[in-house]
Parts: sequence; C-alpha cells; structure tokens
Amino acid sequence: MPVPTPLTGVVPPVCTPLTPAREVDVPSLIRLLDHLLTGGVDALFVLGTTSEAAYLTDAQRRLVVETATAHVAGAVPVLAGAIDMTTPRVLDHIRSATTAGADAVVVTAPFYTSTHPAEIARHYRLLAAESPVPVYAYDLPAGVHTKLGADLILELAGEGVIAGLKDSSGDLANFRNVITGTRSRPEFTTLTGSELTIDAALAMGAHGSVPGLANIDPAGYVRLDRLCRAGDWDRARAEQERLCALFAMVTVGTPTRMGGSSSALGAFKAALQLRGIIACGATAEPQVPLSDAEIEQVGKYLAAAGLL
Amino acid sequence: MPVPTPLTGVVPPVCTPLTPAREVDVPSLIRLLDHLLTGGVDALFVLGTTSEAAYLTDAQRRLVVETATAHVAGAVPVLAGAIDMTTPRVLDHIRSATTAGADAVVVTAPFYTSTHPAEIARHYRLLAAESPVPVYAYDLPAGVHTKLGADLILELAGEGVIAGLKDSSGDLANFRNVITGTRSRPEFTTLTGSELTIDAALAMGAHGSVPGLANIDPAGYVRLDRLCRAGDWDRARAEQERLCALFAMVTVGTPTRMGGSSSALGAFKAALQLRGIIACGATAEPQVPLSDAEIEQVGKYLAAAGLL
Amino acid sequence: MPVPTPLTGVVPPVCTPLTPAREVDVPSLIRLLDHLLTGGVDALFVLGTTSEAAYLTDAQRRLVVETATAHVAGAVPVLAGAIDMTTPRVLDHIRSATTAGADAVVVTAPFYTSTHPAEIARHYRLLAAESPVPVYAYDLPAGVHTKLGADLILELAGEGVIAGLKDSSGDLANFRNVITGTRSRPEFTTLTGSELTIDAALAMGAHGSVPGLANIDPAGYVRLDRLCRAGDWDRARAEQERLCALFAMVTVGTPTRMGGSSSALGAFKAALQLRGIIACGATAEPQVPLSDAEIEQVGKYLAAAGLL
Amino acid sequence: MPVPTPLTGVVPPVCTPLTPAREVDVPSLIRLLDHLLTGGVDALFVLGTTSEAAYLTDAQRRLVVETATAHVAGAVPVLAGAIDMTTPRVLDHIRSATTAGADAVVVTAPFYTSTHPAEIARHYRLLAAESPVPVYAYDLPAGVHTKLGADLILELAGEGVIAGLKDSSGDLANFRNVITGTRSRPEFTTLTGSELTIDAALAMGAHGSVPGLANIDPAGYVRLDRLCRAGDWDRARAEQERLCALFAMVTVGTPTRMGGSSSALGAFKAALQLRGIIACGATAEPQVPLSDAEIEQVGKYLAAAGLL
Repeated sequence: MPVPTPLTGVVPPVCTPLTPAREVDVPSLIRLLDHLLTGGVDALFVLGTTSEAAYLTDAQRRLVVETATAHVAGAVPVLAGAIDMTTPRVLDHIRSATTAGADAVVVTAPFYTSTHPAEIARHYRLLAAESPVPVYAYDLPAGVHTKLGADLILELAGEGVIAGLKDSSGDLANFRNVITGTRSRPEFTTLTGSELTIDAALAMGAHGSVPGLANIDPAGYVRLDRLCRAGDWDRARAEQERLCALFAMVTVGTPTRMGGSSSALGAFKAALQLRGIIACGATAEPQVPLSDAEIEQVGKYLAAAGLL
Repeated sequence: MPVPTPLTGVVPPVCTPLTPAREVDVPSLIRLLDHLLTGGVDALFVLGTTSEAAYLTDAQRRLVVETATAHVAGAVPVLAGAIDMTTPRVLDHIRSATTAGADAVVVTAPFYTSTHPAEIARHYRLLAAESPVPVYAYDLPAGVHTKLGADLILELAGEGVIAGLKDSSGDLANFRNVITGTRSRPEFTTLTGSELTIDAALAMGAHGSVPGLANIDPAGYVRLDRLCRAGDWDRARAEQERLCALFAMVTVGTPTRMGGSSSALGAFKAALQLRGIIACGATAEPQVPLSDAEIEQVGKYLAAAGLL
Repeated sequence: MPVPTPLTGVVPPVCTPLTPAREVDVPSLIRLLDHLLTGGVDALFVLGTTSEAAYLTDAQRRLVVETATAHVAGAVPVLAGAIDMTTPRVLDHIRSATTAGADAVVVTAPFYTSTHPAEIARHYRLLAAESPVPVYAYDLPAGVHTKLGADLILELAGEGVIAGLKDSSGDLANFRNVITGTRSRPEFTTLTGSELTIDAALAMGAHGSVPGLANIDPAGYVRLDRLCRAGDWDRARAEQERLCALFAMVTVGTPTRMGGSSSALGAFKAALQLRGIIACGATAEPQVPLSDAEIEQVGKYLAAAGLL
Repeated sequence: MPVPTPLTGVVPPVCTPLTPAREVDVPSLIRLLDHLLTGGVDALFVLGTTSEAAYLTDAQRRLVVETATAHVAGAVPVLAGAIDMTTPRVLDHIRSATTAGADAVVVTAPFYTSTHPAEIARHYRLLAAESPVPVYAYDLPAGVHTKLGADLILELAGEGVIAGLKDSSGDLANFRNVITGTRSRPEFTTLTGSELTIDAALAMGAHGSVPGLANIDPAGYVRLDRLCRAGDWDRARAEQERLCALFAMVTVGTPTRMGGSSSALGAFKAALQLRGIIACGATAEPQVPLSDAEIEQVGKYLAAAGLL
C-alpha cells in the first residue's frame, strides 16, 4: 500500500520476539502486531534498531517482514529498516524487504567506513534511484557516528530523494530546522524517534513518532499523539511524563555487567513477556540477559504504570 | 590448509578489483593475487577493510573468497574477514567464508549497536564455539568505535578463544602489552595493520604485518619484514621510511570533496591500475572517484618510488 | 543581591565587547548591559561561553564582573561563569567573581583532565562548601567532553550542593528528567542554553533560558518567555521560529577558514556593531575574524528580522 | 639557560608534591628534583599533565617554576607547561613562567572552545611572537580533543614558530611523519611522551622522551635512552619492557570509583612516597585518593622492579 504523504501518527519500531534458541518467534510476533494494531498505531516499522535488526540474519530479517506484511495485510503501512554499512549492501536489503512486501524502507548513513557528507548524499541518491518504494533517512549518530545535518536533509528532500526523516539523534534543534525547512514540501514526513520528547517534536510540527516504548504501551503513545494534534498541550505533557516514567525501565540492567542495548531491549522484551504478549524475553547475541532481579524491576515499572 | 601458529610475515589485505559496473573483476583479482604471491607474501587476507568488505554484497564476498582459495590453492593460507555488526550476522559470514575455503576468519568487535566489554567477550566466545577455523580478533576503533584492550585480548587468548590479533588501532602501547602478555603462548599470533610503524611493531615482537600498501609494493613489505627478522634495524628503518613516503598517496583526494576511504582506496586502486595489475580503478559506492588530476598525483608517488 | 529561587525568565550570556587591541571595551559593555536591561531581561550571565570567558585573562574577567555589577547595581542578579579545568582553579575564579560582586557562579564539570562521575560530584561538593554564593552547574559536553547526567544532577540538587542547572547540551530528554525530577524542590532552577528550543524547554517546565542570541534581540527572547509562561504556545512557536531564522547568522563564517566559535561569536559581535551597540566586532585570539562579505551576510539576517 | 637545539634525552614531567592540605610541598619537590638530577636526566619539564598543572592555581604554578629554576640553577634546562584554554590566557602563563626563570614553554592546542586548524596555527604564531623563550607544541588529544597533524607541525616548524613537539598522542605514525619531515631542520626537537614506546620512537629518530614514570625510576629511563642512542636495540627493548611492567601501576585504582588521572597520578605519588622521596602522596582535588589496598599494590610493583 502507498505510504501517506506525509505519514502521521505513531509508528512503533516493532520488537522482534525470539525463542530461547534465538530464532524469530513468529506466533509471538503476530501477537505483538495485534497488540500494536489494537492500540491504534498508524503504521509499523520493522527491522529498526529496537527490532534488533543489527542482530538478525538476512533470513530472519526477511521472515520478519514477510510475517508483518502478511499479517497486517494492508491495515496500516509497513516500513522496513534496511540497515547495513554501505550502498551495495543496503540495496540487497531493500530488494529483500520490498519483495517481502515492505511499503517503504528506512536507511541510515553509511557506517563502519569513514564517511563524508558528499558520500552520504551519494548513498541516498543511489538508493532512491534503485528502490521501488520510498526511502526514509534515519538519523542515528549513536549507531553510525555521523550526523545527518539539516542542510543535507533539506537538499535531499528538495531533490525528492528521500520521502522523510526519522530523527533518533536527540538533537531537537537540528530536527526543528528540518521541520521548518520542509514546510513548503507538505509531502515530506518528519518523525521523531526520541520517545521522551515527542510532545516537543509534535509542537514544533513533526508529523509523528517512532517510540520503542510503544511496544509496551501503544495506546499511551497514540493518546499522546492525539492530544498533541488537538493542541491540548497540558494533557499531552502529562501523558508524556507518564511515559517518561515508564521508559526509565531501560536502566534496570547493571552497567558493570552489560551495555545500554542489552539493558533497554532486555527491559522492553521482559515487559512484553510479563504482559503476556510474547513468549520469551530473550535478546539476540551477544547481548547479556537481564537477571531475575532486574526483570522484577521491570515488573515494578509496569505495575506503577498500571500495565500489569 | 592449517594456518601456522603463530602466523608470521606479510599478510596483505587484498584489494578487491571492481569493474566499471562495480562487479568483482575476477581476472584482475587473479592478477593481483599472482602479483602478491610473486612478491613473496606469507599469507593473504581477503575481505578486510582495505578489501572494501564493508561495500561488498554477500554474493561478492563469497566470490572473492572462492576465487582466492581456488587460485592460491594452498600456496599460502587465506584469511577472510567476517565483517558485520553482531554475532548472528558474523556467524553467517563465517559459514560462507569457510565453505568457500577460508583457512581462518578475522572479526571485529560488534558495531552499530552500543557495546560493553562483557558483550565483546561473549561475541568472540560464541564465534569461536561455532567456527570451524581459527578466529582472529581485529582491533579497528576507527570503524567500530570501541577499542579491544590488552586485558580483554589476553583473557580471550588465554581461553584459546582467539588465535591472534590484527591490530589496526594505531595504539602501539596497547599492542605491546598484548605482544609481551602472550609471550608465554607462542601459538598466539600478533599482526600489525599499521603500515607506517611495522618496523616498530616487529621490534617489539609482533609476528607480522597486514599492510594495505603491500597491494602496491609487496616486495617492499617482504623486504622490510625480512630485515626486521634479521635484526638489521637500520636498513629496516630505511625501507620503512621509503614505504611511508609511498603511503602518502592516500592523501591525494581533496578533503572537501571526499572522505578518507575514497581517497586511500582510490589511490591504492589507481596505483594498481597504473601498474597494469588491475583493469579498472573504481571503488565501490558511495565512495567518490578520484579525479584525473588526483590519479596523476598517484602516478607521481609511484614514479618517485621507482614503481612505474 | 540574592538570586531568586528559582530564577526565572531570560538570562542572556553577555557578550564581552573588545577593542581592536583585544582589551575589554568597557563603554561598549555598558551600552550592551543597558540594551539588555531595556529589553527586559531577568538576570545577566557574564563570563559564559558566549562571553568568550575561555579567552579572557583573569584581569579581564574581573573587569567584566566589576563593570557589570557596578552598572547593573542590583537591578537584576548577575551570575558569573567560573570556567576552568579543576576545583582549585575554579575556586580562584569564584573568589575573584564574588569579590567583584557576582550574585552566583556557574561552573562546568572538570575538563582537560580525564574525569569520573565520582570526581565531578566531588568537584561540585568542594566548590559549594567554599563558595559564598550559590553554584549553578553548567552542562556543556561540547566544551568539556563529559555529560552531566540527570542522576548526578538530581543527587547534587538533593544535597543542596547546586542551586540550578544551565543545560547547554542540546539533550532535552536528559534535561526533562532533571526538570521533572526536581519538581519537589521548587527552589531548584532549570535553565536551557539551547536558543532554538526554548519554547520546548519551557513547555516541559524549565524556569528560563540563557540564549546567546538574546544579546542581539533581548526583547524577542523576553517576548518568547512571556508567551510561554502565558501558555500561548502557538504565538510562542512563531516567535521562536523567527528567532531560529535569525540565529542562522552563526553559520556565516566559511568552514574551511574558521571554526564554529569564530563564526558564531563573530556573527553576534558583528550584529551588535551593526546595530550600533558596541564599537568593534573583534573576537578574542586565536579566533579568525569574519570577512567583510561575511559581515554583510550578518546584516542581511538583521534586516530580515527587522533589527536594522 | 638556552635549551639545546635539538633537546635530547630524558625530560621527565616533574610530579608536583602536595601537602595533605593540597599546598605545594616545596621540600618534597626539591627532593624530587634532586632524585631526578641524580638519575641523570637531561632536562626537566614542570607544569605538564603529570605535574597536575591542570589542578594547580596560578600561585602554585609560579611557586613550582620558581622552586625548580632556583634549585636546579642551570644544571639542566627547565621547560614549563603553559596550559590554558586560549591564546590570551596562555600568554599570561608564559609571562609568569618565564619571569620565574623557565627556559622554554610547552603549549597545547586551544581547548574547551571549538577549534579549527587555522585557529591552532594562529594560536602558536601569536604565542611565538610574544614569548621570550622557545615554544614547544604539546600534542595531547586525550586532553584537548584535537590532534596536531604532521602537516600543521611541519608548517609551524618551517616558519620557526615552534622549537619542537612533545607528542603524547600515542599516534606513532603521525609522529614519525614529523620526525622524518623535520630531518632537514636539525634544530627542531621531537620528544615522545608515550612512556611505553620510547624505544620505538627513538629508533624512528626522535630526540628524547618525556616519561611520567621517570619520576619513579629516572635512572631506568636514562639507561633506556642511552641504550637506544648506542643502537643496542635488544637491551633497550628489555629495559623498556621492564619499565612497561612497572608502568602497569597506573591501573591500581578501581575504575568504578575513580578516573584514570586519579589512578595514574595517585600511583606515581604513592610510589614516590613509598620510596621516601616525597612526604605525602596526595593528589589535587577533585581527584579521588587511592585506598590503602591500592597503595599496597603500588608497593608490589615497586618491589617487583627492585625499587623498594
């Protein structure tokens, strides 16, 4: 299905449930998709960072897209990450994801290799020329170690190379420059991936959000989105603050024992398991599993948010 | 063939010649392999950073390994990079490379995702448990944005998890701690990827080198290696300094127009083309091609070194 | 005079006008102070980053504080930066600034030396124990290369060690955690130094702003502040966007010729000179001066904003 | 006294002994100076990073230089760090240090403020124009967060702006380019601050070393220097490796409790106290003191090296 231009609302980056043997748990994934659709989300983003795309093999990635597009069956658009180091490898992922039915692809700047802005622009131009579906730029400096500056985004938007931006940089000033700079292109989509400042981004004019925590509480994020659209900023802030308190679950992992990804994705998946949505909270290797005590902490966050 | 323990000498990271359409140019690759073998190198490292592994598709990667192992036919060991973000994806590359005949694999720390030392250790342990061939650790902070500290390497070496280290960090102090810390494990291999300080690394006790510039002048690097082994440090230094002057070709690319990878790999491939070894100097997308004037500069470096 | 608890409103980081010989231009500074007071600002922050504190000698720093406190004479509070590498050196600056009449001091984490969170906490505790005036923490990762996490700030706020936070990190998510985490301490002040997202920070509950651009247009920032306080978010956003457009003047400097500080501070001072407020637009050494053409660009920004 | 051109040999960065109240302990400093001179060092470097210059007040810095120049009385040259953020502030330190008798000054790139290569060059040119003594560039990316590239150093050396380079970057490849690039300027001094790779740097042609650990074992570093000069590389390596083992004392501090500076400088000062050279091992605030158990570990390193 064509992706709306612009795409608005809540677009959760869908977690990828795994079995204890670290295979994609398709029945759990389907339950999670239903949970999100029931929550009222406007589109789905599979194979993002929260989806552990960096950890999934090509076969697993394809299975995720196929499962999502088949199950969702056009109810909402399905965007798919095409996360890899450089243009030729990303093109392979775009082919795989679109063959599997993805309605759009989401792509970061090149990484691992040293990168120049001219090379980043060339990357997106080459991808757009080959991709059968719209390409969204994905700004994730924490992962790729370069920043997509507003100038570059506006240039690529002006050429029609990219259909939108998913900003997960935490740099709202730069994102604001993109938002105001693309007002004259109403088809260009601006999505924030910063789940703690969605009210602020929507107040600036962003079209929607890609909150990892929406896996756990999609209805909350949809509520937040609708309050922002209605200009009810006081209640929006209250809802956002409730979600910020819930988001603190990402810190349950002990920092001397694991990194931020193990802790955050471990907490999300533990929460989904505790809520009965997925069968197993395992994260992909080499992430370190949460301990029982850490999982118990996740439960307390859920309980405090009335989600258990 | 089994890789010697330790592996010693010159192990060039083999450039991957491409056609103008950016397909692997197999005849050129074979000529390059012959050029390196004729130069006297002790082993080959395909699919490293200099090989543009980050840019090659899975099919291209496999073709490179198959071509190399078939052509070399056991004359020297063939190591293959298995460069990807996390354990499950690296395992797929290990399977592909070893099926294609690689004698060992070379693997970085996880990247893109945030990483903790405990997760890096877990990564190598899981890989070693599954790999049919020895696993070498590859320290490349410029690409993966974490550093493999000597403590971690010594721990993994002590467990027999890794067979050696390729150090491309430029941090000779840490590398020295690995070299001296593994003296009691004579089977553990220490290779430097810093082509400007090979004499220093060998003087400290490193077993060998992985110099990208050896694609252009393998005989020079073999000479340097043999002088070091003979303890002829004065002549070694003179040879190293000659190679340092040649290495300056990596700066021919204009920094306002391209990044370091485009410039360095562009120069290496231009040099190989100018020397008549490969048919086309193209680098993979989205790297920016050298201009004619920049390629002319490469030629001057070759001429100054007596290689044209 | 005692600083209000919390301190609210607009607290511009006062530029330091220099003569062509790079001495503090006291008459220009006094005119600038009057310009700011006339604009309605709520307090003044001298010796901040925008004030070029990093470039001023100790004698110049003292002259600036003395001039400001004498001229302002209690009309509004005067906060002074005490910017130096470590505790003992910062204490000297605190002594100097408070002897010269500063009502509060603003201090970053230690820099130049490698720093641990425990050492940052110790730093602030030692300063607070010695300082005769309140100490505000200054989060400036771009300058000091460490981040003041919300946990650390909340701990120090809870102990009464710091009176407030000036957040110039651009990380609104962390700042929000400080804002909501100190709601139960109504005397704790939260100020944003990010001039492009002040509406967002105030909507989250921040008490005020420290916008460098308020040197040029104090009335605009006061208007923005009052609109936010009145909950008139639509007009606040419009005013903020007008100021964002004006702020783009910081990019006039050619990046191949100078760094970001030369460009931004050069533009601010050129604007103040063009507006007739200061006599000379010189920035401190070793910053590179703007060219005539670049200064002309600054004039166009002013004209577009109706400030010329 | 004029500094030799080039300056060769061992130039220890002199620790600054402090009393328990964190005042400069002049008698201990004098004993340390004697210990170093007795060890045969070729010059002294006060107010460097190892000297805790970043922590010393201006009065303390001046006292250190005065004490050193008065006590040494021309026996060897005394270089002094002039460590501060920008040109005007560094100039004040240069005035103070040279008035107190320093024979040369050592200066980093600007820090805290964002810096462009053109501004770094301007910084050194302005300093050289004003300084009554030679200016040495100090490459310390870990502290100042910019790198002094070989191109910049060669340009400044060619202009006679800087008299030498102290390289504490750990980047031997870049340092080698400086060494070989200044062979035609025999008066230009190249010193390595990397105490674990001094043999390598001297083999490349560096003139000398600035090893922090030489505070503890000056005779060892002098021996290493003399062996290198004699071309006795095997014995040089053995001596260097002995010193590397001793250097590991810098890791005694528990990383969850303190940063690298607290641990390394704490270990150096504990060792000096254990050896009876200084009266108190205190480091400056806000560094965290070593525990008794950690100090005991330092003692074991000394014992293993035959220095207790």
